[in-house]
Amino acid sequence: MKALAYFGQRDIRFTELIDPKIEDDRDAIIQVRACAICGSDLHIYHGHGFSEDIGFCVGHEAVGEVVEAGRGVRQLKVGQRVMVSAAVGCGQCAPCLAGVVNRCVTNSGNCYGLSAKLQGSQAEYLRVPTADFNARAIPEGLSDEQALMLTDAQATAWFGARNADIRPGSTVAVVGLGPIGLMGVESAFVMGASRVFAIDRVPERRALAASLGATALDGDDPKALAAQLAEATQGRMADCVLEAVGYEATISLAMRLAGRRGTVSVIGVAQERMVAFPMWHAFNMGLTFRIGTCSVPEEWPALVPLVQAGRLHPERFISHRLSLSEGARAYELFDRREDGALKMVLRPGG
Amino acid sequence: MKALAYFGQRDIRFTELIDPKIEDDRDAIIQVRACAICGSDLHIYHGHGFSEDIGFCVGHEAVGEVVEAGRGVRQLKVGQRVMVSAAVGCGQCAPCLAGVVNRCVTNSGNCYGLSAKLQGSQAEYLRVPTADFNARAIPEGLSDEQALMLTDAQATAWFGARNADIRPGSTVAVVGLGPIGLMGVESAFVMGASRVFAIDRVPERRALAASLGATALDGDDPKALAAQLAEATQGRMADCVLEAVGYEATISLAMRLAGRRGTVSVIGVAQERMVAFPMWHAFNMGLTFRIGTCSVPEEWPALVPLVQAGRLHPERFISHRLSLSEGARAYELFDRREDGALKMVLRPGG
Amino acid sequence: MKALAYFGQRDIRFTELIDPKIEDDRDAIIQVRACAICGSDLHIYHGHGFSEDIGFCVGHEAVGEVVEAGRGVRQLKVGQRVMVSAAVGCGQCAPCLAGVVNRCVTNSGNCYGLSAKLQGSQAEYLRVPTADFNARAIPEGLSDEQALMLTDAQATAWFGARNADIRPGSTVAVVGLGPIGLMGVESAFVMGASRVFAIDRVPERRALAASLGATALDGDDPKALAAQLAEATQGRMADCVLEAVGYEATISLAMRLAGRRGTVSVIGVAQERMVAFPMWHAFNMGLTFRIGTCSVPEEWPALVPLVQAGRLHPERFISHRLSLSEGARAYELFDRREDGALKMVLRPGG
Amino acid sequence: MKALAYFGQRDIRFTELIDPKIEDDRDAIIQVRACAICGSDLHIYHGHGFSEDIGFCVGHEAVGEVVEAGRGVRQLKVGQRVMVSAAVGCGQCAPCLAGVVNRCVTNSGNCYGLSAKLQGSQAEYLRVPTADFNARAIPEGLSDEQALMLTDAQATAWFGARNADIRPGSTVAVVGLGPIGLMGVESAFVMGASRVFAIDRVPERRALAASLGATALDGDDPKALAAQLAEATQGRMADCVLEAVGYEATISLAMRLAGRRGTVSVIGVAQERMVAFPMWHAFNMGLTFRIGTCSVPEEWPALVPLVQAGRLHPERFISHRLSLSEGARAYELFDRREDGALKMVLRPGG
Repeated sequence: MKALAYFGQRDIRFTELIDPKIEDDRDAIIQVRACAICGSDLHIYHGHGFSEDIGFCVGHEAVGEVVEAGRGVRQLKVGQRVMVSAAVGCGQCAPCLAGVVNRCVTNSGNCYGLSAKLQGSQAEYLRVPTADFNARAIPEGLSDEQALMLTDAQATAWFGARNADIRPGSTVAVVGLGPIGLMGVESAFVMGASRVFAIDRVPERRALAASLGATALDGDDPKALAAQLAEATQGRMADCVLEAVGYEATISLAMRLAGRRGTVSVIGVAQERMVAFPMWHAFNMGLTFRIGTCSVPEEWPALVPLVQAGRLHPERFISHRLSLSEGARAYELFDRREDGALKMVLRPGG
Repeated sequence: MKALAYFGQRDIRFTELIDPKIEDDRDAIIQVRACAICGSDLHIYHGHGFSEDIGFCVGHEAVGEVVEAGRGVRQLKVGQRVMVSAAVGCGQCAPCLAGVVNRCVTNSGNCYGLSAKLQGSQAEYLRVPTADFNARAIPEGLSDEQALMLTDAQATAWFGARNADIRPGSTVAVVGLGPIGLMGVESAFVMGASRVFAIDRVPERRALAASLGATALDGDDPKALAAQLAEATQGRMADCVLEAVGYEATISLAMRLAGRRGTVSVIGVAQERMVAFPMWHAFNMGLTFRIGTCSVPEEWPALVPLVQAGRLHPERFISHRLSLSEGARAYELFDRREDGALKMVLRPGG
Repeated sequence: MKALAYFGQRDIRFTELIDPKIEDDRDAIIQVRACAICGSDLHIYHGHGFSEDIGFCVGHEAVGEVVEAGRGVRQLKVGQRVMVSAAVGCGQCAPCLAGVVNRCVTNSGNCYGLSAKLQGSQAEYLRVPTADFNARAIPEGLSDEQALMLTDAQATAWFGARNADIRPGSTVAVVGLGPIGLMGVESAFVMGASRVFAIDRVPERRALAASLGATALDGDDPKALAAQLAEATQGRMADCVLEAVGYEATISLAMRLAGRRGTVSVIGVAQERMVAFPMWHAFNMGLTFRIGTCSVPEEWPALVPLVQAGRLHPERFISHRLSLSEGARAYELFDRREDGALKMVLRPGG
Repeated sequence: MKALAYFGQRDIRFTELIDPKIEDDRDAIIQVRACAICGSDLHIYHGHGFSEDIGFCVGHEAVGEVVEAGRGVRQLKVGQRVMVSAAVGCGQCAPCLAGVVNRCVTNSGNCYGLSAKLQGSQAEYLRVPTADFNARAIPEGLSDEQALMLTDAQATAWFGARNADIRPGSTVAVVGLGPIGLMGVESAFVMGASRVFAIDRVPERRALAASLGATALDGDDPKALAAQLAEATQGRMADCVLEAVGYEATISLAMRLAGRRGTVSVIGVAQERMVAFPMWHAFNMGLTFRIGTCSVPEEWPALVPLVQAGRLHPERFISHRLSLSEGARAYELFDRREDGALKMVLRPGG
């Protein structure tokens, strides 16, 4: 089959790979109809990935059609449109049985396309292990693209917003307006935020946040941004801060923006092993700090009806729709944030 | 002063009453700028009130201007615009010190205008006991009418919605679309409801709910309404039901509309001492049932920013603005639900 | 095989039934080592059961050893000691995948031994459908009897206590001191109750509650009991009430015992279709009322470590250990509450 | 009056100071019956205090008798035994009115004895501002010493335990077994912890924790401690970690001890402005981190009944009872952790 594979720093190639096969009778093979590039794929692209492997198929967001199902698959049927959770669980350990995939005892943190261990989804075909558990029929009324956003990006943005303890009436700040940050802005409003302050250096991204109802804050000086927020909130600052970047500088900014007893939630993949943390400030303000990855299907019971009802529109943050064969260019555009690049969707044969 | 007083069933009169005076040095006197009629005032109007008293001043919703403040008042200043909580606490017992006025040990359930004990607010002047505690300066950016809605109706609707365990993504049903029911519809969306089903016999009220984004359900046969909801939700019914009427029949309907592990919240003042409760149904469905009155100021930290930010518009449900002298007619209109009557606002000297 | 079957009112017989067989490749057959009689089995015994069937095997609490496992069973192994959840889910629908068995879309409320539909567990052998999901290896350190209590009784008592919103510092009342009520007393203390008031007519049961640290209240006059509680709590009454009987009279008593903003949780199987509910009282007190059945495995992550650590001792409430062949007598004793009867454990071949 | 005052590093003197006077008509003067030394007093003692002031009266924990009350004091009466909250609020701003003293807008973080601004409580007399709000009659059944522990230490330990998200069944680790750490151990059990692992270098402190039911872990090598915990928990580590020291090294240890989706709560006063934070580890484990000071009276509604009922025994952690005149020696003993020093109680004239 044709697929995108990683061959070194900034070297993603559209190439021929071996077709995936059923390995266990609960597996299913899906023919990918659409896949997407995630911010964490850029870590691999930059050569700071999660393994030393070379030549493996990348990507972990996909929707498609079941073309083959193992004998032990009960729910999914050949021909069915499905969405595949980026988080992969064994489906049988205690955390999986409680629906908390990212505490899976067997393969916690398992994900497609991070190494040669589990093939990625930027490909024509994808093997889904324990398919009844790790994929679901696309719910009625959802488009392929909406479902694709639910396989990771929108679920992660939502999880991050929940982690920020957003309550009706909260004042929220979002640091970083890539696709996940923007979905975080929309999520915050659905959770009842009274005001959302949105921060990014790229004017187009700020404009998009403003169109969602947010108050965009300009500039990149932490002190000046904190002063702007202080003025806009009579010194109370934000109850909830979503950090959607993951660098020490942006985490540090996020900490400054939180008010008394506030919560800072980091959704961005942490880029640095150790980070200087303003402990004295956190102590005086009484802060809560949360970070982690999303247990994707855990978010679906809330997200599916919200997308069905038109309260969340994650498909709005798709900026490019390209053929899978144009994958290398898609990575380049997304990396450079050029051409209004936000969520990049790729279609095999598209 | 001029005021509205209760003289018997359907007999509310605009009459002369003695001016209120400071009785304790923490009291303040406010000159009422606007007051409103609440659904629970209709109980008094119908002769099913909370006391046997005659000739007392009615009403418990008011905004106005401080015209006199006792020596022990610290926060409120003469000349300041204030909103007065319908729930009145002593401000010194343990529940009051924790902000939970409706558990006040000294005078739990205390409220203006229910009897001769505490003068009502449908008057030119109102004495507010422990004024720093029971009234607040109207927050920046709120109109008198918005603030007036926060003194009871919007706070009660919000409390009722919280009592219904509404979470982002919830499917909600609202039974009864008077002012509080309609504010409940808007509140449910702010709390993240994916869908809100709105039920009332009056077509104008259903139309208003629909304009807020709700799906209006027609008819008054419980079985048929339950069938409609079942169809619209693939049999899952509502996660959360707000009952904003208070009769046995509507409570019984609300119970039917709730799905597995759902919650029914009654906001309407309970009209009957004992009600037949479908225990076997509740057991099989695993329901939660909640009822009670609102501790008004407890809701303000969430509500004030939401009204300031334009996410809640309780003033939209004001249908009539009349002079206090027209009070008798206002009660009549509201009681008959005529002329699109929803929230009735009265202005002394207006 | 030998088993207990229902043949009519107060007619439970130890008799010969056909051995269960694997019907689906995810089923397992367990050889029952111990089973128990539940309060809800008495409804069947009294002839007020859940079906019109005759001759079916009763019981829904069991531990045993896997003697046969279908080809699709992955976690459980032949020879393994397992505990079987009384709540039976399909393991594949959305609620099951989220660990909420009692919202199972396919067979909500499914349970062994309520009718001829699913064979009961008071037998030598039991077929467990979707065995990996509906049974678990007995965790290290748990005795058979402790595990047996976790299959229903202790899980239900715990769920009921959670439903009562017990928080550290809460004042709790427990109405009815059968096995589940007594486990509720112990559960309340583990959840941090400051005081637990325990009510039952049987002196031995009150003495047992007192030995757990509860304050036993005597008598069966609701008014007198309410007065006793009022005196003991300076009029505050209970924050949380567990009703472990299910009759209108005891539910009504439970409502009287709750203080402002309190919660009443009914754990007993509701005996009456409609119950007179004190709505005006509930409104004035601001009560929450909850009822429903337990999604057994949902409670295990908290319960297993508590039993392992010796903080909960559900095995203490086992009063009788008999042979399965003595089942008819066991039902009789339990029904009459004679001979200190609490939890009755039966052993096939015992 | 006689009092303890700070004159420089390790120089606390029992000396003569001016008697406090009513400054505002809501103030009260209490005659101190007992006061205590807190871990945070040691920061002052070490010369790393919160101001540059010299000669000010130290201490912020006290119980006593009201000897004078301003005209505006309503609840407290001369002659009454009272406990004084270490956290001091204005009692009139929105957070204070909601019971959240440590968000007080006027004087957030205000506390006795940190500088010359507000006189300390290690003295014969203490002025309590807004006394009805900042002090309470000692509840029935509490000894002076129990009440004294509630003015700060037990409230802080409890708050820290709540911040650690302890739930019934949780596995808890406590790092640092000074008075607050030990009270944290007891609090964790009351909140339902299944197991508590207690870590300190001092054998006597570990023995005390073990006597409360904890599993004491020995040694001071973080790697070895983490390995011990991993073994005892089959690799799951702690769900909740309380850090009761405040140094970078102990915070770092606490982070290592937390399991997936765990929470680390720092109760110790943060000693360093910036701390190296293991961000990559926190990301992979999905951790929550919380730090801050306690809003003392917010904890009393839960704590008072628990102490009354004998479920919490904070007085057990009092190691020394000395005269106020022996204050200098008390600081020295506590600082050196000599002679089993834990909570040091001082009595004026004692």
